[in-house]
Amino acid sequence: MADKKLFAQNPAGLLRVGEGFRLADQPTNAAPGFSGGKSDGGTALAARSGVLSVLQEQLFAESRYGGTKSVLLVLQAMDTAGKGGIVGHVVGSVDPQGVALKAFKAPTDEEKSHDFLWRIRKAVPAAGMFGVFDRSHYEDVLIHRVHGWADAAELERRYAAINDFEAELVANGTTVVKVMLNISPEEQKARLTARLADPSKHWKYSTSDLDERAYWPKYMDAYQAAFEQTSTPAAPWHVVPADKKWYARLAVQEIVVEALSKLNLQWPKGDFDLAAEQARVAAC
Amino acid sequence: MADKKLFAQNPAGLLRVGEGFRLADQPTNAAPGFSGGKSDGGTALAARSGVLSVLQEQLFAESRYGGTKSVLLVLQAMDTAGKGGIVGHVVGSVDPQGVALKAFKAPTDEEKSHDFLWRIRKAVPAAGMFGVFDRSHYEDVLIHRVHGWADAAELERRYAAINDFEAELVANGTTVVKVMLNISPEEQKARLTARLADPSKHWKYSTSDLDERAYWPKYMDAYQAAFEQTSTPAAPWHVVPADKKWYARLAVQEIVVEALSKLNLQWPKGDFDLAAEQARVAAC
Repeated sequence: MADKKLFAQNPAGLLRVGEGFRLADQPTNAAPGFSGGKSDGGTALAARSGVLSVLQEQLFAESRYGGTKSVLLVLQAMDTAGKGGIVGHVVGSVDPQGVALKAFKAPTDEEKSHDFLWRIRKAVPAAGMFGVFDRSHYEDVLIHRVHGWADAAELERRYAAINDFEAELVANGTTVVKVMLNISPEEQKARLTARLADPSKHWKYSTSDLDERAYWPKYMDAYQAAFEQTSTPAAPWHVVPADKKWYARLAVQEIVVEALSKLNLQWPKGDFDLAAEQARVAAC
Repeated sequence: MADKKLFAQNPAGLLRVGEGFRLADQPTNAAPGFSGGKSDGGTALAARSGVLSVLQEQLFAESRYGGTKSVLLVLQAMDTAGKGGIVGHVVGSVDPQGVALKAFKAPTDEEKSHDFLWRIRKAVPAAGMFGVFDRSHYEDVLIHRVHGWADAAELERRYAAINDFEAELVANGTTVVKVMLNISPEEQKARLTARLADPSKHWKYSTSDLDERAYWPKYMDAYQAAFEQTSTPAAPWHVVPADKKWYARLAVQEIVVEALSKLNLQWPKGDFDLAAEQARVAAC
């Protein structure tokens, strides 16, 4: 389904985490599969948003006639990598009626008193919905691993629980699309500098961003381990180069378009007698 | 805040339901206050969406620094009047992160076992959010009145409960913007005809649409009564001519822009020492 004119190769395939994947070898500033530049990327994003919107509407429409399919886009990344931009520019291009967005923050006391998947399960998308997790259950194997809040045995338990949970979602009709936006430390530094230079962006700045930045190599190790443990055939990870915001948006859009395309969505036929209803409307 | 080049008069003021308002006298096919045509309307909608997006982001940002303000857009209308279009084209133009959309359907058994406001209260927007109700607690004084599911005394109780509830919301920092999209029966017939002519729209068609259409005058009476009882200074109604979809979208956008403008929103200053953080970023 990739636009042949611009995507020489489908980014979903190129960016999927498979056997032998090494995060450390991945480019952050490239545009895999895409032959154009920034301005072509912007044009392509706008053009493809129509395709995405129709697919999303078909997904939603099917659920109104008994369809049980849904999609869940899981977004993980270091701070400033552009999760918000994906939400605004990719997710934001479809009808809000069909979107279920959940941003996971530090857990509340009530959430902490339950298993880590408790709050996650409550937020999975209903039939027909395009669910989006801005951060997710992966925080429990990323920041928890980096700071030693979970030991090795507990991390193993969580990886297994995540795989079971996601397999269950897939078996129930949810397509799980997992994306890590991969930026370089240099690009993060440039974005934090820009954020501090713009008073309209100060509210997005947190002193803890730099605290976490100091653990960069440990985060990369935690991501590598998460990919090895949880990039399953049923719910694979995609690592998207994110130093170029325009590319990351375009690639995630295309990955979601591909996932929806595979569902063979159709417009529901309606549960009424068309000729009879046309006659009723004509007579009313 | 209305764009002086296109809105000769602010639609929020023109369309507000005040003393002596009569729904039966309102035009459905007009464009009050707007001097341009359909194509100007499309241009203006796109241009103003940037203003709306900034205001919404400021509302969201303030809440991250202790702000308690929020906005609730209540949408009511006859079928096909364009609620979905408002959600897609007006609400859909801002960052999904700051939007809390709730579409109210026929109540569940659990919801029916509670007071009619029970499910509504659970869905009010949190601080910083742009909440949208696609249908609302007004169904309980509209369809319930039309079909006699609530008697006169119960309707009186509900009007009073609604006014108390909305006054409470306003006192707690929520700006309540109530909009009725006003289409003519002729326009509804045209839209139903078009819907049946397009297989990609059959899923939106329900045989009950025509059933309810037969009660049109009773619905208009119920709306008139609701306006008289619940268009309060704190939470006034706006009746928006909706035969021209482009105008309805533009007018609702402007009404929301006006409501947000009155909040005197500012970018939060941030809770850190700017020079110190700039030095930390430079050194990292």
